[in-house]
Amino acid sequence: MSTTMMAARMHEVGAPMVLEGVLLPEPGPADVRVSVRACNIVPNLANILANWTTWFPQNPLPALPAIFGLDPAGVIDAVGEDVRGFQVGDRVYVNPGRHCGGCKACRRGDHINCTSFAFAGYFGFTSTASEMLDRYPYGGLAEYMVAPQYALVKLPESVSFEHGARFGYLGTAYSGLRKAGVGTDTTLLVNGISGTLGLGVALYALAMGATRILGTGRDRDLLERVRALAPERISVFSTKDGAIDDWVRRELPDGVDVHVNALGPGAPHEPFIQGMKSLRRGGKAVNIGATAGEVPIDVHHMMDQQHQLIGSVWFTAGEGEDMAAMAANGMVDLSVLENVTFPLEKVNDAIHGLENRHGGFSNYIISPSTN
Amino acid sequence: MSTTMMAARMHEVGAPMVLEGVLLPEPGPADVRVSVRACNIVPNLANILANWTTWFPQNPLPALPAIFGLDPAGVIDAVGEDVRGFQVGDRVYVNPGRHCGGCKACRRGDHINCTSFAFAGYFGFTSTASEMLDRYPYGGLAEYMVAPQYALVKLPESVSFEHGARFGYLGTAYSGLRKAGVGTDTTLLVNGISGTLGLGVALYALAMGATRILGTGRDRDLLERVRALAPERISVFSTKDGAIDDWVRRELPDGVDVHVNALGPGAPHEPFIQGMKSLRRGGKAVNIGATAGEVPIDVHHMMDQQHQLIGSVWFTAGEGEDMAAMAANGMVDLSVLENVTFPLEKVNDAIHGLENRHGGFSNYIISPSTN
Amino acid sequence: MSTTMMAARMHEVGAPMVLEGVLLPEPGPADVRVSVRACNIVPNLANILANWTTWFPQNPLPALPAIFGLDPAGVIDAVGEDVRGFQVGDRVYVNPGRHCGGCKACRRGDHINCTSFAFAGYFGFTSTASEMLDRYPYGGLAEYMVAPQYALVKLPESVSFEHGARFGYLGTAYSGLRKAGVGTDTTLLVNGISGTLGLGVALYALAMGATRILGTGRDRDLLERVRALAPERISVFSTKDGAIDDWVRRELPDGVDVHVNALGPGAPHEPFIQGMKSLRRGGKAVNIGATAGEVPIDVHHMMDQQHQLIGSVWFTAGEGEDMAAMAANGMVDLSVLENVTFPLEKVNDAIHGLENRHGGFSNYIISPSTN
Amino acid sequence: MSTTMMAARMHEVGAPMVLEGVLLPEPGPADVRVSVRACNIVPNLANILANWTTWFPQNPLPALPAIFGLDPAGVIDAVGEDVRGFQVGDRVYVNPGRHCGGCKACRRGDHINCTSFAFAGYFGFTSTASEMLDRYPYGGLAEYMVAPQYALVKLPESVSFEHGARFGYLGTAYSGLRKAGVGTDTTLLVNGISGTLGLGVALYALAMGATRILGTGRDRDLLERVRALAPERISVFSTKDGAIDDWVRRELPDGVDVHVNALGPGAPHEPFIQGMKSLRRGGKAVNIGATAGEVPIDVHHMMDQQHQLIGSVWFTAGEGEDMAAMAANGMVDLSVLENVTFPLEKVNDAIHGLENRHGGFSNYIISPSTN
Repeated sequence: MSTTMMAARMHEVGAPMVLEGVLLPEPGPADVRVSVRACNIVPNLANILANWTTWFPQNPLPALPAIFGLDPAGVIDAVGEDVRGFQVGDRVYVNPGRHCGGCKACRRGDHINCTSFAFAGYFGFTSTASEMLDRYPYGGLAEYMVAPQYALVKLPESVSFEHGARFGYLGTAYSGLRKAGVGTDTTLLVNGISGTLGLGVALYALAMGATRILGTGRDRDLLERVRALAPERISVFSTKDGAIDDWVRRELPDGVDVHVNALGPGAPHEPFIQGMKSLRRGGKAVNIGATAGEVPIDVHHMMDQQHQLIGSVWFTAGEGEDMAAMAANGMVDLSVLENVTFPLEKVNDAIHGLENRHGGFSNYIISPSTN
Repeated sequence: MSTTMMAARMHEVGAPMVLEGVLLPEPGPADVRVSVRACNIVPNLANILANWTTWFPQNPLPALPAIFGLDPAGVIDAVGEDVRGFQVGDRVYVNPGRHCGGCKACRRGDHINCTSFAFAGYFGFTSTASEMLDRYPYGGLAEYMVAPQYALVKLPESVSFEHGARFGYLGTAYSGLRKAGVGTDTTLLVNGISGTLGLGVALYALAMGATRILGTGRDRDLLERVRALAPERISVFSTKDGAIDDWVRRELPDGVDVHVNALGPGAPHEPFIQGMKSLRRGGKAVNIGATAGEVPIDVHHMMDQQHQLIGSVWFTAGEGEDMAAMAANGMVDLSVLENVTFPLEKVNDAIHGLENRHGGFSNYIISPSTN
Repeated sequence: MSTTMMAARMHEVGAPMVLEGVLLPEPGPADVRVSVRACNIVPNLANILANWTTWFPQNPLPALPAIFGLDPAGVIDAVGEDVRGFQVGDRVYVNPGRHCGGCKACRRGDHINCTSFAFAGYFGFTSTASEMLDRYPYGGLAEYMVAPQYALVKLPESVSFEHGARFGYLGTAYSGLRKAGVGTDTTLLVNGISGTLGLGVALYALAMGATRILGTGRDRDLLERVRALAPERISVFSTKDGAIDDWVRRELPDGVDVHVNALGPGAPHEPFIQGMKSLRRGGKAVNIGATAGEVPIDVHHMMDQQHQLIGSVWFTAGEGEDMAAMAANGMVDLSVLENVTFPLEKVNDAIHGLENRHGGFSNYIISPSTN
Repeated sequence: MSTTMMAARMHEVGAPMVLEGVLLPEPGPADVRVSVRACNIVPNLANILANWTTWFPQNPLPALPAIFGLDPAGVIDAVGEDVRGFQVGDRVYVNPGRHCGGCKACRRGDHINCTSFAFAGYFGFTSTASEMLDRYPYGGLAEYMVAPQYALVKLPESVSFEHGARFGYLGTAYSGLRKAGVGTDTTLLVNGISGTLGLGVALYALAMGATRILGTGRDRDLLERVRALAPERISVFSTKDGAIDDWVRRELPDGVDVHVNALGPGAPHEPFIQGMKSLRRGGKAVNIGATAGEVPIDVHHMMDQQHQLIGSVWFTAGEGEDMAAMAANGMVDLSVLENVTFPLEKVNDAIHGLENRHGGFSNYIISPSTN
């Protein structure tokens, strides 16, 4: 086997990726090496690469030159000596979350709240997170990557690598719904339902038993396409047509059990505020979107009505297992996602050329390795 | 027995209470009648009486003339035929929460989120809540009141009626701490720690095992008095001395597990905002205070750091049982509360003359009945 | 409207039901009256009527002459003045569980563990339960019955009265699965999978996301019929062919997450014992069946392997709401149940003539009222 | 520093420990090395050493010659490069639980239910557990041991090494109480309350808020000593004086919320059976004791009354953190434990000479290292 591999690396903030040969990494005792068959080009990637150090200086990028790539799926190619439950040839999704293993949250098993939590191939969430990025300086935009066994989700045969590489955004939706207690008999409002996050919310809320899903967005054609997934349970509304809370109260006078914000960066604040006003007494809002800035929140009303506002980022390895099971069971149908696949050489085009998306239905994939 | 009783009633919004004889109410099948020995004059009462219909027109007052009185304790004097587990002579706290019994939340046992939830003797939380106020038009500012058995908490001998009549504000603190998951090994920030709500937060957080309680307020003497409750676990800081989050990060660089807002009406927004900034990754804020208006919240930061903001009002009957047990067990020491007791005739003085409080340490009580 | 109705009543333990005219009951303030369209003749009814006072003398029957009938569905015909959320004409399932409202469990909202819990139209669970049977002496084997609003589940249009009258046994399955934490990615063993309880376990476990359902029974044809519900997820095994735990370990070497005992009265102990041996480390057993006598349990093994054994009877009103939502959502398909319907006059035949059941697929129904 | 250390090792099953010099172990990247100041000689150790391979052949011992020692506390002496949150000089308890990190339970953060779970220095729980014992072949009966950072609990200054070395049995009690939902307002029965496990149950149940603790045992003097810990909350009963359930029903007619079995190996079955009969409707039994053999359990009664029987072994690292906090807070007073300390050379005497225990009050400690 070759001792090098092809990787796309960013050498300076904002510069295009450079395709180059680098050393093939070796797995540590509890690690595996994965041949990356698909890596999602998440909508936010261009922002991260160009603006992160300016917008969020407290959240470190990987040391440059760096291999980015948040959401990879592939085949295990080598395993460390302490790896159990996985073997060469297994098809896996690689959760990018990395944790330190020693802080109080980690020792309590709450790894996603590690004080040094980082996304390998993307960025870290605290100032100490760069240590995690140094420990695992591998993203999905390379032929191979090394990852710890704790990050792996075994993909069922029925899930393609392209759909597996969507697990990050889908899992963000799933985890948000779980934190808000969505289940049988829940009603919910989803702002941004036709986007990459919002479509995942719709798919998992259906699988989890929601009785009514009220979705908003702007593009009426995309909204209609979401509604067609389950016309008897999903209703849609364009924000061009009025205030969201007025519409919700017409549909459900007591309000919804759950409000999910799934809007992307640059979204206005009104949908968020109107979503808060759409909750029933005791209802919960969960924010998985990228709405930025300070949103004016009526905290007295939240107190009076026992509302909760839950921030949720990403998902746990256990939630990834759930998702694989739900795909295998047929509870979630990923076939509505349209794959658009590029080879690794086209990475810069892919990052910057996502204008023609069909909202969340489009699934932009780099396929760095084919064997 | 007489067929009338003395009651203080408000005949017009904002008018003083009128002391008058009214019909002695009879308990229904699942109700008890309580001889009210103590009723708390909660700090917010003057506001409710004078300004509620203007400030919160959607939240109905009881039909006038009305017997107010949120937080009563007394002795059972008569029981309906379906009452089980209580008998004449039992000492009880009467939780003012009333629910409809038929809405979806009620049938799920989540009575506090009833679509018609109301505080007997105070106000309702939704437009349909007046129905509950009509069903139970009895507050604690009368010699007797009728209440449903579901609202009762049996008081242990070690809890005086005066301290029992503080259970409402204490329970608000306790329930807020529970919703935020406070327990052994928790660190928390309490804004407004020396007030009526905040002192309850301190007392119950100690009992529940919090390791570090960081309390803020303005009055340094009162703060010091709170700190003296458990100097090795409580630290205090006057907001006159700087930003709260700077202080918290000096004490606990990773931030606190929980931020409790216990400030009263009219509080500025800064402590709330600084409290949100004081949370560790994965931390939770709980709002039991009366901070009003729209507080600017950085929802992107909440998402990134998995923060939650939990609105919490009042507490359940089961939580009341916990509180009675904790008092009986000696886990919570209520002897720090200083009772200031008035007869029913002095009710108007008591409502408007609370300027000389020692913060939350003062416990202003009306004692309508003595037998 | 007539002031009488037809009812089937038992006048002496073990005697046949007598069809007779009785006074039409009036609903109390928080009650409704239901025109009973369907009442399930549960397999165990003949046992209850003939042998209960001998077998379980501590568990009281209703006062004789009594209207039995555990599992009714029908249409609301009158409502009390405090009823909210239901109105005349609503289609409902009537949960037979009755609670006192005043004991500690009730005041905590844990009504099913009320110290006086009783099944209206069936029997009580403790010596004080006769009080509940006196409060609601109405079962489903009459044209009308009175029930408290807390017991009602609104039936969606897609659920027939005959299927609604199966909610009791289905809900027993559903609640057992919930208590054992069954969800996405769970594997389970169901002993007695083709019986009235076991089939419900299969249907709800599929809806809740179980990946593997291993079912046992005796009759190979019935087992095969269960397997055909979802051949890629359900496997079956006849206890005539060997030990259950040997089979389970061949299918899943680490064992199952959950073992459900759904066997009826008179079942041997071996399947239960072999089910306990089939659990993975950390697995849970839930007993909803009627296996009687003292089963030898290796409690040291349970401790070492962190096994739990959970007794579960019936289900809450909230779980009933879930079930109605799951039926409306299409998550559970009740069309596999074959209704066999009798008029009220044939009640004695129905109780004693259930030999020709197709296991749990048969649904024996009395239809006392048709308007 | 020397490259060797003194260790007590067993070379053959049942043979006495041999004191000998062995290579000083080096920590891996995520490990620490601990200078062992105290190691508990748990009452069951002699059984494990002599009889384990006969009694429980499926549960592997460490490869011989082996360093045993289940419950160590000491000072960190060296740290691996990936260790965060701990440094040289930290005082720690070393949880002996070791998990694989890759099985489904591990990836869900449920490490104690790992399919290869093992106690370092003691034994493994499944056939694949020997792999974990090989990965960490270090018990506390040596001057130094290597352990993973995930197993560490930082000891507060107020906890001596001798008391820290009791955390294993104390934590077993604490975790069992948590699994049974013990908290404020709970009543419980503890069989074996004066033993090593049972005394821990009493101490933590008090701290967690239990209102009534009914304890049984045989020795009336020891029972009285337990009762004296909190005479207003603890009652005791000698099994020489009658049936346990009769006594419980005299004290609490509805039964207890929780029954804890804390009896050691060789205990008769009657207390267990009588404990099951002592539960209230909805009550829970938790088995942390070593009662062996097949106990006859009335599973129909468990179903009817919604009883649960929970097997619980050991505790998580997070629960260890709780315990350290509770000791620091003063919620649990460990000063009732009487330390009896031996040097490492006396290990064989200590293992076999524990006859003069004062029940659970005696704390038998080996102190292998003093610097």
